[in-house]
Amino acid sequence: MSIKQLLDSNIRDIPDFPKKGIMFKDITPIMQNPQVVTSAIKEIIKEVRGWDIQAVAGIESRGFLFGIPLAVMLGVPFIMIRKEGKLPYKTIAQSYELEYGTATIEMHIDALKKGDRVLIHDDVLATGGTAEAAAKLINQVGETVGFSFIMDLAFLNGKEKLKDHAENVSSLISY
Amino acid sequence: MSIKQLLDSNIRDIPDFPKKGIMFKDITPIMQNPQVVTSAIKEIIKEVRGWDIQAVAGIESRGFLFGIPLAVMLGVPFIMIRKEGKLPYKTIAQSYELEYGTATIEMHIDALKKGDRVLIHDDVLATGGTAEAAAKLINQVGETVGFSFIMDLAFLNGKEKLKDHAENVSSLISY
Repeated sequence: MSIKQLLDSNIRDIPDFPKKGIMFKDITPIMQNPQVVTSAIKEIIKEVRGWDIQAVAGIESRGFLFGIPLAVMLGVPFIMIRKEGKLPYKTIAQSYELEYGTATIEMHIDALKKGDRVLIHDDVLATGGTAEAAAKLINQVGETVGFSFIMDLAFLNGKEKLKDHAENVSSLISY
Repeated sequence: MSIKQLLDSNIRDIPDFPKKGIMFKDITPIMQNPQVVTSAIKEIIKEVRGWDIQAVAGIESRGFLFGIPLAVMLGVPFIMIRKEGKLPYKTIAQSYELEYGTATIEMHIDALKKGDRVLIHDDVLATGGTAEAAAKLINQVGETVGFSFIMDLAFLNGKEKLKDHAENVSSLISY
């Protein structure tokens, strides 16, 4: 079975989550199959080969799920990008627009060294708003060399938005 | 260097977080050292040998950090325990008392099969309130066979509280 088929058979549709009219793609069944998790991470590692990655940054909280084992298997540091006020040490912040209002994400000020080449990881690429903000956050200190997602929702054109920030955008499966 | 020394040299004290008077133990420096993450997970695997674990449940969101690679290395499913309203599919819930008010955690109703033997993992054991609620949640379907933490704050006596719920409580380092 290809990785796409393997993932697709472990992703389920949840209607009207988080609100009415949205069809949510639920990846939790993947987490219940350790072999599928391992296969997905190996596939990401194949895709990002040659990007010269010095750290993986995961976006809270589902970006931690694959982000950590990815960092460990790549042998590089894992950087937590969290919602405002969650990180205990000194932080740098980046705000961004939501449909209604704004949101702020943060990382520790010493999470990266100047110029570090960073892969940004999250589970799902939708409009790309959060990932774009993550890239701006990373670029305050280091350099975003690419993005990695388990899946993307192609009709929302997130990949186009992110290509302004890094040439490499990897997604294992598109819907 | 022993695992305790290795962890201790990668945990830092943050005064007055999340509120005045609390000395917070910050584990993020561990995440910046993939070798230390791997060593910690191998040490947990040694400690839980013989517990006959069929799934690892991680408590949102720092319990995801080590919980996932632990589940993958043990070759068992990973179960997400999240705050109320975050999980997309049908859930079961457990409420518990906080210092002021109550909180509720949830897991997916199909995350476990009846009687599954579950290891509950989180990064830090403090009073044990959340871990105790997690055990009650797991025990609605499966069986909590033990708890695993990166560290515990011994003066808060969390281990005593948890021993009512499972005979096995592992913590790699105590403060």
